[in-house]
Amino acid sequence: MPELRRDPVIGRWVIISTERAKRPDQFGGAEIEKEELAHGEKCPFCEGNENMTPSEIYALRKPGTKPNSPGWEVRVIPSISPILSIEGDLERRGHGMYDLMTARGAHEIVIDTPQHLRESQLSQEHITKSINVVLDRIHDLERDPRIKYVLIFRNFGKAAGGGHIKHSRLQLIGTPVNLKRVKEELAGTKAYYDYKDRCIFCDLIKQELETQERVILESKYFIAISPFASRFPFETWILPKNHSCDFYKMDRGHVPDFSGIIKTLFAKMHKVIGEFPFNLVCHTAPFRRDAGKKGYWETIEQDYHWHFEILPILTRVAGFEWGSGFYINPLPPEDACKSVKAASL
Amino acid sequence: MPELRRDPVIGRWVIISTERAKRPDQFGGAEIEKEELAHGEKCPFCEGNENMTPSEIYALRKPGTKPNSPGWEVRVIPSISPILSIEGDLERRGHGMYDLMTARGAHEIVIDTPQHLRESQLSQEHITKSINVVLDRIHDLERDPRIKYVLIFRNFGKAAGGGHIKHSRLQLIGTPVNLKRVKEELAGTKAYYDYKDRCIFCDLIKQELETQERVILESKYFIAISPFASRFPFETWILPKNHSCDFYKMDRGHVPDFSGIIKTLFAKMHKVIGEFPFNLVCHTAPFRRDAGKKGYWETIEQDYHWHFEILPILTRVAGFEWGSGFYINPLPPEDACKSVKAASL
Repeated sequence: MPELRRDPVIGRWVIISTERAKRPDQFGGAEIEKEELAHGEKCPFCEGNENMTPSEIYALRKPGTKPNSPGWEVRVIPSISPILSIEGDLERRGHGMYDLMTARGAHEIVIDTPQHLRESQLSQEHITKSINVVLDRIHDLERDPRIKYVLIFRNFGKAAGGGHIKHSRLQLIGTPVNLKRVKEELAGTKAYYDYKDRCIFCDLIKQELETQERVILESKYFIAISPFASRFPFETWILPKNHSCDFYKMDRGHVPDFSGIIKTLFAKMHKVIGEFPFNLVCHTAPFRRDAGKKGYWETIEQDYHWHFEILPILTRVAGFEWGSGFYINPLPPEDACKSVKAASL
Repeated sequence: MPELRRDPVIGRWVIISTERAKRPDQFGGAEIEKEELAHGEKCPFCEGNENMTPSEIYALRKPGTKPNSPGWEVRVIPSISPILSIEGDLERRGHGMYDLMTARGAHEIVIDTPQHLRESQLSQEHITKSINVVLDRIHDLERDPRIKYVLIFRNFGKAAGGGHIKHSRLQLIGTPVNLKRVKEELAGTKAYYDYKDRCIFCDLIKQELETQERVILESKYFIAISPFASRFPFETWILPKNHSCDFYKMDRGHVPDFSGIIKTLFAKMHKVIGEFPFNLVCHTAPFRRDAGKKGYWETIEQDYHWHFEILPILTRVAGFEWGSGFYINPLPPEDACKSVKAASL
């Protein structure tokens, strides 16, 4: 049975996943990963192959078409190898000094398109539809009181854990605990707000717009920047220019503008470095069902600001990074910004 | 000029390394990394090739031999592409809301052996000599007031950023800031000590010895365990059984016992999974030149406990991990422990 275990020293949660388990002797030997579908292998995410996946949770469909049959534009299914399971109660327990809980939560795949397209081939319209579906899914997951946070992410390419099936898709993981990385951001944004009575991300956007050194793109409602302390070459953040802590409460009228900046940004990046392995993650505020709670919750709507982080995997993370929690980046973000900004489409 | 930059939100430091810099257009295309020395390429770490490296900082030498010539057993050199530079003053400055400092510090390579041996071929005697040299180096680096912390690490194998030259070596990086990962541990151990008046690692060792579920090996002074919340398959920690916060103050009489447990542990792991890519990092207390400081420093000698972390790189870290700060491990640590413990040598 999969379990969530907490490191007693630093509070980091780990999922011990039995769904993806291997025996100890299966880890040896050189790693061989397929890069593409094998000859004759069918893509489970393509229209017409709906019977290869678990039953769909949700879909954007043409009128009159039935669930789990062709006729969809965006389709949401449970993960084929979920790291958290939606069934059963959430149990928390101790084991001496250790803390653990049953691995309950949601793990869904949002298939961006019925055609066998790669991430780089998505149109602005594909992205708009897909984001609207993601927003719908988060509203639905909010109703499950076991879920504290929904992480939205996309992995592309072998080095980024993207898998060998190159059919564009996003993932949603709803977790029963708040995420360490997000807690760190919440603590940082709260400390800044307590000191200055301003949102740190709003100040950051203001400074970036003034200096223009790291602004790659600007649209009506969004901005794409190379962050000042980029961990990775070509790391890019996309932020809404107007303050908002909740991604899922985005004005639906702004979605096409958001898709547009994503599409243009990736097209420009592809011009500079070609198609590249990347992870994309959305950092947004946790659900706030316990209104009036102290701590982060007190000022979260004022101090937190949602954003997307695009993390190209072009360098290796080694012992220094794991051991220290700090990163070595061989490309100044100002140079990355300049080259992407200058790319003509 | 290389710079240290601080993420304004979560306080993570990043080194923008110009020594290892590439132009933006050099990041594209498929990654081609050499796995071994090319035909005719000489190893700069081998005895006889001392002129291929910067001048040695320190060496364990046979009597009568001269620096930068053959006759050494362990040799310490500055990194050929240092991420921090020892020359010049440490300057701290702000740039609007951002903080940065000059990338000052130390980056040294400790060559374990004059022969062209891989990590897996080191004898207990090699490891003992090498650790004694590392301890000497940390005592020396402590005298440089710009250096707050010395991170000791080892990268082996391509997936772990180990480089293509398979000549066994350790690295030391002396940083002008305390490391985020270590700060998190210090905060966790202090909170536990404040609550219980005991060291959390001492309690952890006690519980592990009682249950025996995750104890791989025990020597006279050390213990090797599979941590309860292992992030990676076969993750292993080695801890001193007696409480101590400073690795570099280890009783020199205990070094052969420490080398023995490392040698046996790796030999057993190799039996189960063969030679494997890994990062090894040492977590120890920071230098305490400002005695009497508040915060972590108050109780650090009572509450912190140094240890080595061995992190096999057998799985990929993807968007979920980067985005959340939590990990998915497909192998329960109890199973990893059982298989390594049972391996006969």
